[in-house]
Amino acid sequence: MPDATTPRPARAADAADAPAFGPGRRLQAMLDVEVALAEALAAASVIPASSVGPIRGAARAEHFDHVALEAAARDAGNPVIPMVSALIALVARTDPVAAGHVHWGATSQDVLDTALVLQLRDSVGDTVDALTSAADAAADLAARYAGTPMAGRTWLQQATPITFGLKALGWMSGLDRARERLAAARNAASDLQFGGATGTLSSLGGAAAEVAAVLGARLGLRVPDTAWHTERSRVADLATALGVTCGVLGKIGRDLTLLGQTEIGEVTEPSTPGRGGSSTMPHKHNPVASVRAVAASVRAPGLVATVLAAMAQEHERAAGGWQAEWDTLPALAMLTLDSACTVAGVLPALRVDDARMRANLDAAGGVARAEGLASALAPCVGRTEASRLVSDACADAAVGGRTLEEVASAMPGIRAHLDAGAIAAALNPAALTAGCPALVERALTARRHDRKGSRHG
Amino acid sequence: MPDATTPRPARAADAADAPAFGPGRRLQAMLDVEVALAEALAAASVIPASSVGPIRGAARAEHFDHVALEAAARDAGNPVIPMVSALIALVARTDPVAAGHVHWGATSQDVLDTALVLQLRDSVGDTVDALTSAADAAADLAARYAGTPMAGRTWLQQATPITFGLKALGWMSGLDRARERLAAARNAASDLQFGGATGTLSSLGGAAAEVAAVLGARLGLRVPDTAWHTERSRVADLATALGVTCGVLGKIGRDLTLLGQTEIGEVTEPSTPGRGGSSTMPHKHNPVASVRAVAASVRAPGLVATVLAAMAQEHERAAGGWQAEWDTLPALAMLTLDSACTVAGVLPALRVDDARMRANLDAAGGVARAEGLASALAPCVGRTEASRLVSDACADAAVGGRTLEEVASAMPGIRAHLDAGAIAAALNPAALTAGCPALVERALTARRHDRKGSRHG
Amino acid sequence: MPDATTPRPARAADAADAPAFGPGRRLQAMLDVEVALAEALAAASVIPASSVGPIRGAARAEHFDHVALEAAARDAGNPVIPMVSALIALVARTDPVAAGHVHWGATSQDVLDTALVLQLRDSVGDTVDALTSAADAAADLAARYAGTPMAGRTWLQQATPITFGLKALGWMSGLDRARERLAAARNAASDLQFGGATGTLSSLGGAAAEVAAVLGARLGLRVPDTAWHTERSRVADLATALGVTCGVLGKIGRDLTLLGQTEIGEVTEPSTPGRGGSSTMPHKHNPVASVRAVAASVRAPGLVATVLAAMAQEHERAAGGWQAEWDTLPALAMLTLDSACTVAGVLPALRVDDARMRANLDAAGGVARAEGLASALAPCVGRTEASRLVSDACADAAVGGRTLEEVASAMPGIRAHLDAGAIAAALNPAALTAGCPALVERALTARRHDRKGSRHG
Amino acid sequence: MPDATTPRPARAADAADAPAFGPGRRLQAMLDVEVALAEALAAASVIPASSVGPIRGAARAEHFDHVALEAAARDAGNPVIPMVSALIALVARTDPVAAGHVHWGATSQDVLDTALVLQLRDSVGDTVDALTSAADAAADLAARYAGTPMAGRTWLQQATPITFGLKALGWMSGLDRARERLAAARNAASDLQFGGATGTLSSLGGAAAEVAAVLGARLGLRVPDTAWHTERSRVADLATALGVTCGVLGKIGRDLTLLGQTEIGEVTEPSTPGRGGSSTMPHKHNPVASVRAVAASVRAPGLVATVLAAMAQEHERAAGGWQAEWDTLPALAMLTLDSACTVAGVLPALRVDDARMRANLDAAGGVARAEGLASALAPCVGRTEASRLVSDACADAAVGGRTLEEVASAMPGIRAHLDAGAIAAALNPAALTAGCPALVERALTARRHDRKGSRHG
Repeated sequence: MPDATTPRPARAADAADAPAFGPGRRLQAMLDVEVALAEALAAASVIPASSVGPIRGAARAEHFDHVALEAAARDAGNPVIPMVSALIALVARTDPVAAGHVHWGATSQDVLDTALVLQLRDSVGDTVDALTSAADAAADLAARYAGTPMAGRTWLQQATPITFGLKALGWMSGLDRARERLAAARNAASDLQFGGATGTLSSLGGAAAEVAAVLGARLGLRVPDTAWHTERSRVADLATALGVTCGVLGKIGRDLTLLGQTEIGEVTEPSTPGRGGSSTMPHKHNPVASVRAVAASVRAPGLVATVLAAMAQEHERAAGGWQAEWDTLPALAMLTLDSACTVAGVLPALRVDDARMRANLDAAGGVARAEGLASALAPCVGRTEASRLVSDACADAAVGGRTLEEVASAMPGIRAHLDAGAIAAALNPAALTAGCPALVERALTARRHDRKGSRHG
Repeated sequence: MPDATTPRPARAADAADAPAFGPGRRLQAMLDVEVALAEALAAASVIPASSVGPIRGAARAEHFDHVALEAAARDAGNPVIPMVSALIALVARTDPVAAGHVHWGATSQDVLDTALVLQLRDSVGDTVDALTSAADAAADLAARYAGTPMAGRTWLQQATPITFGLKALGWMSGLDRARERLAAARNAASDLQFGGATGTLSSLGGAAAEVAAVLGARLGLRVPDTAWHTERSRVADLATALGVTCGVLGKIGRDLTLLGQTEIGEVTEPSTPGRGGSSTMPHKHNPVASVRAVAASVRAPGLVATVLAAMAQEHERAAGGWQAEWDTLPALAMLTLDSACTVAGVLPALRVDDARMRANLDAAGGVARAEGLASALAPCVGRTEASRLVSDACADAAVGGRTLEEVASAMPGIRAHLDAGAIAAALNPAALTAGCPALVERALTARRHDRKGSRHG
Repeated sequence: MPDATTPRPARAADAADAPAFGPGRRLQAMLDVEVALAEALAAASVIPASSVGPIRGAARAEHFDHVALEAAARDAGNPVIPMVSALIALVARTDPVAAGHVHWGATSQDVLDTALVLQLRDSVGDTVDALTSAADAAADLAARYAGTPMAGRTWLQQATPITFGLKALGWMSGLDRARERLAAARNAASDLQFGGATGTLSSLGGAAAEVAAVLGARLGLRVPDTAWHTERSRVADLATALGVTCGVLGKIGRDLTLLGQTEIGEVTEPSTPGRGGSSTMPHKHNPVASVRAVAASVRAPGLVATVLAAMAQEHERAAGGWQAEWDTLPALAMLTLDSACTVAGVLPALRVDDARMRANLDAAGGVARAEGLASALAPCVGRTEASRLVSDACADAAVGGRTLEEVASAMPGIRAHLDAGAIAAALNPAALTAGCPALVERALTARRHDRKGSRHG
Repeated sequence: MPDATTPRPARAADAADAPAFGPGRRLQAMLDVEVALAEALAAASVIPASSVGPIRGAARAEHFDHVALEAAARDAGNPVIPMVSALIALVARTDPVAAGHVHWGATSQDVLDTALVLQLRDSVGDTVDALTSAADAAADLAARYAGTPMAGRTWLQQATPITFGLKALGWMSGLDRARERLAAARNAASDLQFGGATGTLSSLGGAAAEVAAVLGARLGLRVPDTAWHTERSRVADLATALGVTCGVLGKIGRDLTLLGQTEIGEVTEPSTPGRGGSSTMPHKHNPVASVRAVAASVRAPGLVATVLAAMAQEHERAAGGWQAEWDTLPALAMLTLDSACTVAGVLPALRVDDARMRANLDAAGGVARAEGLASALAPCVGRTEASRLVSDACADAAVGGRTLEEVASAMPGIRAHLDAGAIAAALNPAALTAGCPALVERALTARRHDRKGSRHG
């Protein structure tokens, strides 16, 4: 039996070409559930085997009038009721007996939830794949730039030097974590919904367990111990994993928008015709991919909050909460997939300007390397006095337009302990980031090791 | 000049038939802005008058390939850029000179924001109308049932009697407040966006002010003192008014779902074929309208939060926040309109069962009227002792299956101060709600007075 | 080495007595980190062993002026800076050399994040314990009432009969899932934060890895491959697990408030003096515990959304996002713990009234059992005709004040196929819920099996 | 009678010194309501005038054990019940008769909601004052720097030049709008809550209206037509106005953090000892005020969403929604006040570096002024060709390390139409921002005019 953890074949085309939540996909997913249900009912001898064929033959989305079904769903209260009516009518044309066996034993929510799970499994699977690509691209950046110094920045101020590889390692780390959580949540949510009106499957009598087992097997879904019509932790958990994923991607987008500022220009998105231009300014190359990821991270929290707020559902079927999920979960899944694909697309194509990185380290007189000088002085004068001396030097550098190295070299309180060479060495970005390559390499090695032992998506 | 506060003609058909955010409507709204811009530019002699006609002639949504434009918008970073390109190409077929005058002086966000304002003005106008209908229906209920006793319920327990009119008055009050706030926010948000790339309109030189004034007049929008590309309080304020509206509607929906419970059955939605049925249970009449309003109130907070979270936008054009608004504001506006129309539709059609209301007041031995008995006793024995005596009586009634009146009449501690008639009078729901009709009437009179002096929507 | 998965001893007293986020606890947690850091630095010979004692001796929250530290934190930008200054001053009184070794190599965020992780580990550990208790109580209810019929309710309408045990099983299922996710997220978040200013630990040179390893071991925290100053998926993931937990608890609270309505009265909270009374109504026993859980489920989504919205953090230290977590994560952790303890406290004490359950099944003429009658008719007349006949019978019963059984028995279209006994049998709640006990037992058996093989919290 | 719109005297000290939501303030506010209620009851002859004094004498927060009351509130379900019990006990010591008149006719929510309104009126009044200060400071910046060129930035890329005054004008505009909305929402929410258990005030009989009128007058609150126990649009609307305010402030904070980046350095927060330092880096001056405003804008949306999500309240008293407001509204009010005070404090103290502004305009060869060159060329070669030529020039400038002016001057396609002087003029930032001073002055004049005719808060 195929199950939720079975590796899916690599997608030949962009997930955007055949989105799991595209037009008509929900209808087909619901029809798929009805077909599998008929098969399971026949396997358990609840309905005759002869009824399966006519149901299967009719259950194709292209046979239905989507627009009319959507309109009817509004009054009916859910989209399953008109779909079932239309399916029965369609089956009845060829086999009136089979028509009487459509949707037997199931409640609307069984079909709608199971169809949702099928769609989420596809969509989130694509997202997991995109995260894998993005993480691999970040790992490549980490490896390639493990020793390339740039300014580390805290509170949007230059702090101490890092390497670009270390920054990319942070992105990779977030992407890997998001992928693992998302894959786990996807698997945990791959449960059949099948309980009948109130979870008892009473209309199937003694055949209930067998029907459920076959139905789950047909669809590649686990059969849980009890229906989860109003116990929404499966979908809520998956929604939160999508939200965290958008946050991880948004952090990367934010870093990229900041690194690509005109005044910084260290890492920029590729510029191609028709991409990121302005309607008025000839020189603009807007970071459209990065901004897309940031925007998704602004939108996702509200969507996640909606799914969480919808959890306190009434009794055996909700009066508001479940219905609030209907548009929200697809929107969240599509948003996350789009953000993941966008980041996976842009990371391998980034233009990295290590000269600008180096030049920016000299901004404001190179004060961002002050920690190195303080560390060198501390053993001589104590940490507090070292900090005071260097702080004074930084202030002088900022005011006087000189470099920290020049100022420090001219300060008796510093020169008493360090000669010019020692000062230069203490302020050397390469020295201050000397540990970075090993740090990066260790993490990449651990990642390669982990990847050998696991499969995602 | 028409302005944002001009009353709109009553809508002949359901707003749902021509939704302001329906397919193609944004494109047409953007094109409308481009036409008005051309007119304004010509009025200010920035472009020749002869360029206006060709632009106006081309600027119809049906001339464009929506799908291709949407796809191009993704890479371009916004939907205006490909729209402008396509419009230029279309105009150029008939008038190459006019083609060079398309979109002159504007930035993409000028067009997209102004188009949004136009769409919101329409959509929110419809919502204001629906709220008026709903409030009128609630006022009718308040008037009709001003003296119809029912159980007041606190913490989902019967408390003291109210009348159904008083409850409906509360709904009306919320609807009126929501309508006023929404109308005010709609008006406050009806500002032209027009600043060019960074708010300076520098490419229009000295003609800028005149172009802006004419453009605003053409579109019926105020011209603000400065561009609001990244000062989003207008749209954020409108979004929050929509959110509050969904909350007001959700409260009504929640009350209706609770009142319609099988065990309570005091107020129910009308039942018609194809509406609110179940796919398996022949007896079900689900409260689909009420639940729709509840579900909207679950969804709106997350959408509002997104708009608020998007407000901290960067410099003169956002790198994420503005973009996060694009799908969110339309979704919120449509959701609120749908909820308002749904409630406006269901309120006049409610089935009110005053016999059930009266019968339910006798539930649990009629203990919900205990406050009346305590009030009658308090002057005799003090409030604390009165409360204690009545509390004991309630407990006995609950345990023994007798009515509070029976129990109280048999308690010496009570009978020492009140005779049977006094006890019965103290527990009479009509007496306990005697003040309600006047309370309702006063509020309805005030409302009629207010309505004479104001116009909404 | 103790680690995050080590079982903690059962708590002798209520977690509320010593809340991990109570006053002064953050300060002590930060001081604990500083002590462990000194120990690790000494172990790696970065500072002399003689400096550890004085630091350890000073690092007790009661030695500090909390109020002054909080005030200073505001200007300083974070609470670590004034804490470190005060700690240095305190150590300096006894050992000026040791004072120079305080906080060596760490950045403020290293201390604040690690302290947060320690507090979350405690607080969430208590929550996991409370969820275990609550799930056990729900399992007890499921076992005890596995065969007790009650109305299943969908859209707040009676649907088909269930048993109370089946409903409790749903609660248990949610609680178990929440507990597992929360325990996993707690473990996944139990990572040391230690990277120095920008994640390079450059000021520790070659000793960095050893210091980190010892520091992690001392605190029982894993040492991650790279600092997570701005990669917030750990805390975000934990926050979402807390949010899902509040949702699961809120569903139980909502069910309880609904079941306890005066008109339903099937399951009620225990009533004790000083609990759930009204300031004016002697008869009220408000469901304060259930409402507490519902209220928490209303609050949690917004707090979770905040943590998610804070994820897109800038470079190596955030300029807004991290700071937004400070009050939010503790509030969320405390809220969830309170909700879990509340539900764990109320579930074992519920008063279950099976007579009311049975009586309510007869409400509205017992139409909620209509599915049984339709199932019995379907083999005779086909499902559609069966549904139509029963629907008519339900309508007659609702209008005429008769029971569905009476109406059905008098309808020729039904009596042609079913005799009185068959109709009665088809409408017997016990028969309609006959499968429930086995369903419950199977799930409880599986749970006992799972619990043998795992340890939580 | 004082009312909600009465101007409050200027605050002598920082609002933070006496926060409306500080410890004990809610208790005192509740006691104030009880005193005013006693006065109103006496005025309407419901209770003897002699009972007022003893109640007033006892009703001081310092007479109560806050901790014990909070603990009791948990079980009681709300904080009013134990407060009333304690107040009765305290009054009874001196006047047992008066003790029997405490809290007469009111329900807990009457007291808690009215106390909340009193606290919100104070807190939001302080926020309105702070916004006024902040807007005035922004207006000063707008006036002073109306003609100071700097780079306008869109998508975090340099776009076309603006002046710093224009940017500050945008801040001012947002602050003014936020202040007006907040003042209006504060006024609209200044309604008495007084309805008794279910809004009927039945226990006061015919005296109800008079008691309510006097009570409202005493507290300076309007008396609404009907109780708003579960119609929460007043507080929800105020909450949303607070949320929008945080967004407006967050936008300013975000701009400031970006402008203060080491590589940009155009506008920086003042640096003082003990403010914005780092625990490890001597050179750091973190923008703590700006980040505080950003962090508040990250937190507010979730809090607002909670208040909105809580609106769908049940019947006459909520079972979860109202309770979810209790901690949320104070947190939101305090957060907004803090953010407003922070921004009001930092704006007048900003260090503006116009030399850096000018220098940054030359970044990347001054390509940000490309629009000016394109505008100059457009009349000669058409807009499309002009855009193409300038785009090429920008690309060459970016690659070759030359300025746009140098490149353009060397391009035959450009020089054919513009001589060197014309090119220089087209690229002159002063020329490109020539319209800004008038734009700023017009807006400031309009503001002065508006301010004369209005009073806020």
